[in-house]
Amino acid sequence: MTLKLVDSGKRIVKLTGVRSIMADIQKAMEGGTAKIINLGAGNPVAIKGMSEVWERQYKALMTQTELFMNCMGRYNQTRGLPMLLDAICEYFSENFGLSLSRNNVLVSPGSQSIYFYAANLFTGRLAGEPRHLLLPNLPDYTGYGGVGMSDVPIIGCMPTIEQKSQHTFKYQLNLDSVDSDLCQSVGATFLSSPCNPTGRIISEEELLILHHKLQGSPLFVDNAYGNPFPSVCFSEVNPVFKPGIVNTFSLSKVGFPGERVGIAIGSEDVIGELCAMQSNACIHGALLGQALAAMAINAEDLRAASVAYIRSYYQKMHALAAQLFSHYLADHDYFLHEVEGGMFTWLWLPTLKASDLEVYEAAKQKGVFVVPGSVFFSGVDRNDAHIHQCFRISLTCTESELESGIKLLSKVIIDILDSDRGTII
Amino acid sequence: MTLKLVDSGKRIVKLTGVRSIMADIQKAMEGGTAKIINLGAGNPVAIKGMSEVWERQYKALMTQTELFMNCMGRYNQTRGLPMLLDAICEYFSENFGLSLSRNNVLVSPGSQSIYFYAANLFTGRLAGEPRHLLLPNLPDYTGYGGVGMSDVPIIGCMPTIEQKSQHTFKYQLNLDSVDSDLCQSVGATFLSSPCNPTGRIISEEELLILHHKLQGSPLFVDNAYGNPFPSVCFSEVNPVFKPGIVNTFSLSKVGFPGERVGIAIGSEDVIGELCAMQSNACIHGALLGQALAAMAINAEDLRAASVAYIRSYYQKMHALAAQLFSHYLADHDYFLHEVEGGMFTWLWLPTLKASDLEVYEAAKQKGVFVVPGSVFFSGVDRNDAHIHQCFRISLTCTESELESGIKLLSKVIIDILDSDRGTII
Repeated sequence: MTLKLVDSGKRIVKLTGVRSIMADIQKAMEGGTAKIINLGAGNPVAIKGMSEVWERQYKALMTQTELFMNCMGRYNQTRGLPMLLDAICEYFSENFGLSLSRNNVLVSPGSQSIYFYAANLFTGRLAGEPRHLLLPNLPDYTGYGGVGMSDVPIIGCMPTIEQKSQHTFKYQLNLDSVDSDLCQSVGATFLSSPCNPTGRIISEEELLILHHKLQGSPLFVDNAYGNPFPSVCFSEVNPVFKPGIVNTFSLSKVGFPGERVGIAIGSEDVIGELCAMQSNACIHGALLGQALAAMAINAEDLRAASVAYIRSYYQKMHALAAQLFSHYLADHDYFLHEVEGGMFTWLWLPTLKASDLEVYEAAKQKGVFVVPGSVFFSGVDRNDAHIHQCFRISLTCTESELESGIKLLSKVIIDILDSDRGTII
Repeated sequence: MTLKLVDSGKRIVKLTGVRSIMADIQKAMEGGTAKIINLGAGNPVAIKGMSEVWERQYKALMTQTELFMNCMGRYNQTRGLPMLLDAICEYFSENFGLSLSRNNVLVSPGSQSIYFYAANLFTGRLAGEPRHLLLPNLPDYTGYGGVGMSDVPIIGCMPTIEQKSQHTFKYQLNLDSVDSDLCQSVGATFLSSPCNPTGRIISEEELLILHHKLQGSPLFVDNAYGNPFPSVCFSEVNPVFKPGIVNTFSLSKVGFPGERVGIAIGSEDVIGELCAMQSNACIHGALLGQALAAMAINAEDLRAASVAYIRSYYQKMHALAAQLFSHYLADHDYFLHEVEGGMFTWLWLPTLKASDLEVYEAAKQKGVFVVPGSVFFSGVDRNDAHIHQCFRISLTCTESELESGIKLLSKVIIDILDSDRGTII
């Protein structure tokens, strides 16, 4: 008998968006003998100063026998290891003038899980009627498009484009379509800031307008690249705490992705529902990582370390990428998204007639991977030309890889742009 | 605005079964000044010999710098840490005459997650038609009743009862209702062996009959208490590997519950779908725990350690419980389920007129917690008297706690049985 998946099961296993690209990259990297430069990766670069933080705490945990035994040898409550919940409450209360209790916090096995819970708790069907997932800040993290199990479509908002200089532009939120009728049927809203893939930072003003429009349905803000850690944002912005907004944080970009420690902070009601779902989905997250996270928050200055080691690294890489494109694509039509933060450069080729997937394939043949931009535009009209003209270029590599990669990619792009047919396939 | 959950969300956050009892226990333990003996816990007792295994590996990992850095500082593929996948393939292939590849294995953040994925991939609605979750081995793990998000009812099979001695009995599978019509609509089947709560071990013959009836829809066998580890089974039984059967294993009862390492072994197609869902749900499980698990499987003899430290402990506790009931409930009608394995004693009071929940409340007032048995009967007629006459008594305590707890519980039971009204509330 063929294995039968139910309808919602079929939706959740679908290899969509960046996952299909990643699978393709992995296959090519494994199979190939030729060296391929991977500018498609999401794996943050290992930075020595940050690794040392975690190594230090790992050694320290060994000396705390009771804590160590409790982490390994006992189940825990779903919400999180009590010492980590307390460390989070204290840290965020102190740094952002809040008054958090454990009931405002959920520790999950990575922040991806929080979005998986939220999509399936708040979007889908309520008494038969649709409750949509709204993605107002496109292009945005492709994972948001794959976490819902229902048949209710995602609603994405196409941004407007503001040219900033000869080779830079910035997306602007376009919330015209987000009227009160639509908001009645929105179950949850997700956005990342700094945004993966563009690095765009949502302003407090924009966030408050969106929050007001949503009339109380939960708004999830993904601070995976933001403050207080890993602080890969090049202006002083802080998360906005407000009833109805759930802020999520991650230790993945602070040298700790393997341990899967995600944090959600918000009102007791939303956090309580996420926690209840986590209880059925996995009981609780792994505890050794949670203990190490608590110890690091208490004993280290993660924000200062982030600024010193991580922000500075990506700031340098952003500048290098801009300089390389300016050199290799000189005299061609190209734009980079304004650099506000994050670990990626976002490239737009306004005169490209071939699709981003065709460029992806051609670049792969020449030995460089980048992620085609269309996968970051969930829930919008696939006929919009712009969504097929962009690329995410990862800065989580060495300077020489970035140099060789952009050089190769630029040649591919020039060949394609110069081709009369507009396509090479 | 009140927070709106979608229909499937409402189902997954419902505090059902043992979770509501656990919440009640936690509340009472936190609030109370009086000492309450907890024979309701699922937390395995810490056993020194097993803790030492994990402490040794934790120290060893510190000396393997590259492995340590890769676990902490990098994302991993969804399926599991390669060295753990290889350790599992080798260990199970060698010990059970199999020929496993990495594609037959998924490492999840605890085996609860595997059942969560399976329930939502294989049960629910397919083109509008129901695909049921079948629980053929009731009473069974209460968590199976809470992992599905669809509106399709669970189908449970009430067992028949075979008296074995004056105070012991054994449940027998009753698969009469599992005919080919029903099997057409079964999406997945779950059972635990040794069973939580009864300790019952399913025989290979029973399993093959069930497997044959199911005609290929996946059958998940939860070996959380079985072989090769933690080996809390008092006869020599091994998992049955066969296409269509997915065996799950856990390190939680081998001294490692905090780290959430679950293992599924089965055909590539089923494992592949579970893996795809895990990718969207949480990317991958935490890696430090996976590295420690791989090192333990490679360097230690987990089965021998299980037999020496864990099986012997629970065998002694099972004997003690039987002896205590025989002393304190002498001359009363009571039965214990035949001892085949597991960490619990299952008590049946055939003349009880009050409900198990009433006994639970009365016992709580007197200072002892046990779990009312009805929560382990998912998907059956709630009017069946038997399901309200049973209790799960945890053996994960000290001998003196077990003695005091059973003494108190027995008094409560005698009071209730002797009461003319048949109820004390």
